[in-house]
Amino acid sequence: MSKDPAIQRMEKIVSLCKRRGFIFQSSEIYGGLNGFWDYGPLGVELKRNLKDFWWRRNVRERDDMVGMDGSIIMNRAVWKASGHEDTFSDPMVDCRSCKSRHRADQLPVKDGLKYCPNCGSRDLTEPRAFNLMFKSFAGPIESDENLVYLRPETAQAIFVQFKNVLETSRQKLPFGIAQIGKAFRNEINPRNYTFRSREFEQMEIEYFCRAEDGLRLTDYWLEERLRFYEDIGIPRSKIHVHDIPDDERAFYSKKTYDLEYEFPFGVSELEGIAYRTDYDLSRHIEHSGKPLEYFDEETKQKFVPHVVEPSAGVDRTALALLCEAFDEEIVVGENGKSETRTVLRFHPRMAPVKCGIFPLLKNKPELVAKAREIATALRPFMTVFYDEGGAIGRRYRRQDEAGTPFGVTVDFETIGENGPEKKDTVTLRHRDSMKQERVSIADLKGRLLEAIA
Amino acid sequence: MSKDPAIQRMEKIVSLCKRRGFIFQSSEIYGGLNGFWDYGPLGVELKRNLKDFWWRRNVRERDDMVGMDGSIIMNRAVWKASGHEDTFSDPMVDCRSCKSRHRADQLPVKDGLKYCPNCGSRDLTEPRAFNLMFKSFAGPIESDENLVYLRPETAQAIFVQFKNVLETSRQKLPFGIAQIGKAFRNEINPRNYTFRSREFEQMEIEYFCRAEDGLRLTDYWLEERLRFYEDIGIPRSKIHVHDIPDDERAFYSKKTYDLEYEFPFGVSELEGIAYRTDYDLSRHIEHSGKPLEYFDEETKQKFVPHVVEPSAGVDRTALALLCEAFDEEIVVGENGKSETRTVLRFHPRMAPVKCGIFPLLKNKPELVAKAREIATALRPFMTVFYDEGGAIGRRYRRQDEAGTPFGVTVDFETIGENGPEKKDTVTLRHRDSMKQERVSIADLKGRLLEAIA
Repeated sequence: MSKDPAIQRMEKIVSLCKRRGFIFQSSEIYGGLNGFWDYGPLGVELKRNLKDFWWRRNVRERDDMVGMDGSIIMNRAVWKASGHEDTFSDPMVDCRSCKSRHRADQLPVKDGLKYCPNCGSRDLTEPRAFNLMFKSFAGPIESDENLVYLRPETAQAIFVQFKNVLETSRQKLPFGIAQIGKAFRNEINPRNYTFRSREFEQMEIEYFCRAEDGLRLTDYWLEERLRFYEDIGIPRSKIHVHDIPDDERAFYSKKTYDLEYEFPFGVSELEGIAYRTDYDLSRHIEHSGKPLEYFDEETKQKFVPHVVEPSAGVDRTALALLCEAFDEEIVVGENGKSETRTVLRFHPRMAPVKCGIFPLLKNKPELVAKAREIATALRPFMTVFYDEGGAIGRRYRRQDEAGTPFGVTVDFETIGENGPEKKDTVTLRHRDSMKQERVSIADLKGRLLEAIA
Repeated sequence: MSKDPAIQRMEKIVSLCKRRGFIFQSSEIYGGLNGFWDYGPLGVELKRNLKDFWWRRNVRERDDMVGMDGSIIMNRAVWKASGHEDTFSDPMVDCRSCKSRHRADQLPVKDGLKYCPNCGSRDLTEPRAFNLMFKSFAGPIESDENLVYLRPETAQAIFVQFKNVLETSRQKLPFGIAQIGKAFRNEINPRNYTFRSREFEQMEIEYFCRAEDGLRLTDYWLEERLRFYEDIGIPRSKIHVHDIPDDERAFYSKKTYDLEYEFPFGVSELEGIAYRTDYDLSRHIEHSGKPLEYFDEETKQKFVPHVVEPSAGVDRTALALLCEAFDEEIVVGENGKSETRTVLRFHPRMAPVKCGIFPLLKNKPELVAKAREIATALRPFMTVFYDEGGAIGRRYRRQDEAGTPFGVTVDFETIGENGPEKKDTVTLRHRDSMKQERVSIADLKGRLLEAIA
């Protein structure tokens, strides 16, 4: 029986990510750790490009947005106020027989009765709420007073600093506060590679506004975010917008869109855009006793702003970029035989390496010197990879697999051995079409910068 | 009795950081949390500039360095192997009378006897080792098997992924792996503002080499790192290089330099550059049973590489940038009276905002439109701040205090009201000298980009 092609595709992506240094298991040499992942040399650059572009688009290029960076560990009172301490939980049962613990809604059933997937016993406790926040203690004593949580979301840091940011940034409604940072959830079943992990990174905006603008701005942010995904290479057609019906939304939300991507393992959430009304700020006003209201200088009114929250996952988006980019095609190799070419068709602005630079031969000093000179000249402006090892076709293929959009080859024409006409020109090879063109070295930087902007 | 001027200076810096949105107490509205800090709109940009420049200098511009990004929570076995579980501790005593806990080496003494600083009792336990790693549990049961730590340093993630990175990056010795990320230490006494906090960010390089090159490369990295600090605006004269003597170094280190900065609260460590020999990789080979050796293709030898570790603190360096930049000077104000000007003299490449943009008058639509047009044109390339409120002198002062190196004023000459000669020129004002010059709008972007590169 042959495997599901989507599962096969996912297996190939996972294998490529390991082989080329995008993603490794955390602590792999010690058997790993379930739900934790490391990013290798290519993975870290992919994530950097994604986060930098998000920041540029949402913070730097907007005059109605400022950034912040809150601590992962906050005062426990934050999570009491937000409701996480009481309600951020999954239902769990314990097996009295083997002492293992499982999610109540995922227990196997036989003859109409649930049983322990570990030992088969039916002697299970009633479901109890298991809080998904990682606990720790700050300070020298493990007391209730010193109990802290690792934040399960970055959003609350924005709400509790709303007043400080408002007062120091001189913004007026509507305006947003943006943050990128790690969050932790003690998932019972981490799964789907990096999609559902216990440690992950979020890119969140809290966009504060007047109550009457909330619904309109939720739709505005939906469009903005879809445009963002298009601009990083995920077409609108691959994103399913799920307008969450009234009875499935959180009680305080008047509108919520889930943006879902067609991953090989199924259509799954990339981002949520939630109109959260004034719920969060009101909770913190109530619990802290501090005035977090907004004062409108024109109308002289004081009120609690409403908020629209576009909240995206860095790791999920990076995984979507990998899944979207992954391609295999049959091409005719240098030996005339057909072969499979693996290529990551990243948008040039997301590609970890922008340009491979190759001297045609490694034992010809003039070629090597010129290629190194070009690499050095480009490096202040973009990530480049210099490679002199192996046949040129193999070097191209290696960069195809890394998703490098451009290849520059320094050959005998470059150094003037075939006459002065083509001196100081190089071969510029395009990853997707594999087409090659002759470009003068003087034009190279400009051409590349334009493509990756 | 007047205060120590250094303490006064530090108090002013702390006050400015709060007032202008560089740094806030974490969870401030709930009374804060000892040892945790948030970065506001200006602080997050300062940190971004610092981290981005470190990455550019150390990773992108070098062909012998690759990056990675490891998880904060790793398999506990990592910390057994590294020695942290056994030895990363401070000596603590408990007060039997009031149950409080204190660092043994910081207890107050009276009549030759130590006493509890909380209740005065002398009924103290013997010192016991208190491990500084934050503990938590990954998985649904709080068992020894599920015990995990928040990493107390980023370095170990690099060592345990050495083989994966080596195999995927095709690097040859000497080469380095760089990482920026958060780490956590449960300090008993967090102090000196953000200098010693419980949650902090590190920028670390592990530079792998042959044993015979270790000492030379340690000195090479000392020079590199001093040059880095100069290039972000911390002069070499303000950095004390402390060559740690033999009997004070870790037993496995053959050379360690501490780079210390003259903070107002004392000369304190910014960065350590430690030649750690083959200690770390050898420990992980021993504990994991995995072959982490390097195979030299030319000599056909297999060996454990040595490593030089330049390890810097992001928060400490950001604080040094703030301390170094902070200045007060007496100037003659617009009303002819002398006044104190507070200015953050950041290097333009570190400044959170690069350029303030001001229409001379806010009720003149042509001025406002032109100023907004300039802001929009610059925004894709740098962080700008548009401000139309208040007298122009006050707007300049506000940007001085934020450390913005340039101010652009759009006035009547800009829009051609004083004749065609100065049309499409603006006033470019320099923060440090307060000098103003006339610059054409067409030249503006180039001038600014050159200064902040």
